[in-house]
Amino acid sequence: MNQVEIIEVGPRDGFQSVKAYIPLDIKLSIIDELINSGIKHLQITSFVSPKAIPQMQDAQELAAYCLQKYPNAHFMALVPNLRGAKTAWETGIRQISYVVSLSERHHVANINRTRAESFADLLNIQMQYPELEICLDLATAFGCPFEGRKHEQDVLGFIKPYVESGIRTINLCDTIGIANPAQVRKTIRAIQQVYPGLELQIHIHDTRNMGMVNTLAAIECGVTKVQSTLGGLGGCPFAPGASGNLATEDLVFMLSEMGYELGIDLPKLIEAARYQTKVIPDAIYSGHLHKISQHI
Amino acid sequence: MNQVEIIEVGPRDGFQSVKAYIPLDIKLSIIDELINSGIKHLQITSFVSPKAIPQMQDAQELAAYCLQKYPNAHFMALVPNLRGAKTAWETGIRQISYVVSLSERHHVANINRTRAESFADLLNIQMQYPELEICLDLATAFGCPFEGRKHEQDVLGFIKPYVESGIRTINLCDTIGIANPAQVRKTIRAIQQVYPGLELQIHIHDTRNMGMVNTLAAIECGVTKVQSTLGGLGGCPFAPGASGNLATEDLVFMLSEMGYELGIDLPKLIEAARYQTKVIPDAIYSGHLHKISQHI
Repeated sequence: MNQVEIIEVGPRDGFQSVKAYIPLDIKLSIIDELINSGIKHLQITSFVSPKAIPQMQDAQELAAYCLQKYPNAHFMALVPNLRGAKTAWETGIRQISYVVSLSERHHVANINRTRAESFADLLNIQMQYPELEICLDLATAFGCPFEGRKHEQDVLGFIKPYVESGIRTINLCDTIGIANPAQVRKTIRAIQQVYPGLELQIHIHDTRNMGMVNTLAAIECGVTKVQSTLGGLGGCPFAPGASGNLATEDLVFMLSEMGYELGIDLPKLIEAARYQTKVIPDAIYSGHLHKISQHI
Repeated sequence: MNQVEIIEVGPRDGFQSVKAYIPLDIKLSIIDELINSGIKHLQITSFVSPKAIPQMQDAQELAAYCLQKYPNAHFMALVPNLRGAKTAWETGIRQISYVVSLSERHHVANINRTRAESFADLLNIQMQYPELEICLDLATAFGCPFEGRKHEQDVLGFIKPYVESGIRTINLCDTIGIANPAQVRKTIRAIQQVYPGLELQIHIHDTRNMGMVNTLAAIECGVTKVQSTLGGLGGCPFAPGASGNLATEDLVFMLSEMGYELGIDLPKLIEAARYQTKVIPDAIYSGHLHKISQHI
């Protein structure tokens, strides 16, 4: 019960928040540092249109490098459609995060199609790539910038056809950092009650300083895979005050202190966060530890 | 059960972290803003040697102003010795935080006397000012920069004579931001078991991003009075990466979202935090909300 897997999503969610293209060798060197610190699960890129997200233009090369160099690590990539799934599969990726939004308006803004179209495409992916492991990345699971607060009943209603289609893992994403621990617990318990076999993950943005408290709330409800980004990289450097994800090193500190077994070397992870700050200086970091590691 | 009192300690713990003297009228205007937002409990200053902490040189004038202007607010002041208690009493203060450290080495560094000397002085204060309400401010309650980790048995042993002397309220201070939720729960439950009648408070520094999660852990163990500072003001502007207290506005956001009744107007509180940032620009703020209130 005292084991938690940390899924580092900085190379996808963090890097994509940086406007200037990060050279491939810099990206790879950060992934090297992460793996060297003991991180075993990484979302490394997304297979999306390079026109929509130019930062991810090197997805295939990056994924091929990682798969070849680290055969024992668990790499996943974000995919918004059948075309992305095809490229991911052909590159050798066997785990994808299929991104949909609980909110229709956010979904259309994010993926440029309706939720119904995305669901139809998922069925195509499942048919054409039956060996692909698919995690449903549920964006705006707790609230949406356009549609406001979301409730556990919204989640339950929305995921039903996905679970029936064969989805076994759902990642609850607090895209805008609006969730609170009471809501996180309520949502998770409601899903666990209806779908006891479903694996849940959590992905909390730290916009309102709720990253640690909501992630711990999820863990203490039984969630054993949690997402975060090195240094809390995320947000948008052009939106004043925008914040990133929960910082991996903060999370590792808390959980290690509480006795969770993570297999991650905190000083090495902090070194990785410091290195990242050096090679990507023009970015938003919401993490505390890499700034204050002299106190540890 | 869903009521929590927030004790704003920024005018003491926050202001004292700022090296340059903050003019009295600026301090008072920030206190005005805090009270205007609905804050009812404030630690407004400390009665200490102006040589040791020049920032607190205006303690008497500040306290007199506050007591006269806001007869219904609850003001307390930090006091390290009999002399401080005397001045506080003569100024009209009826609630003091008597500061001691669980760690002897930190105590000597902080108060310039031994813990035994401080205990003897407390007995004098209790005798000379029997109507003074005294909260024991227990610094380094979870860990010390010199002596390392502290455990619940250390706390229990240390507070015994204090409780026997008549102390009814103890504020557990995580001075260096090293506690974790498991430790917070363990410590609080141990104290509650031995001293069920004791009122506990919590005061968490956000050094390692643990402010929210540790404060919530305490609240969910039954602690109903929690300390924080506007904007997360605190730390030391001359220690790179040092962090302040838990930010009051972040705490208010979380608890309000969870349904706690606080009687605090969050937009007004955020305005207060923004105002403070303007009038004390050269300081460390660890709060998120006042930076990103455009997202609320």
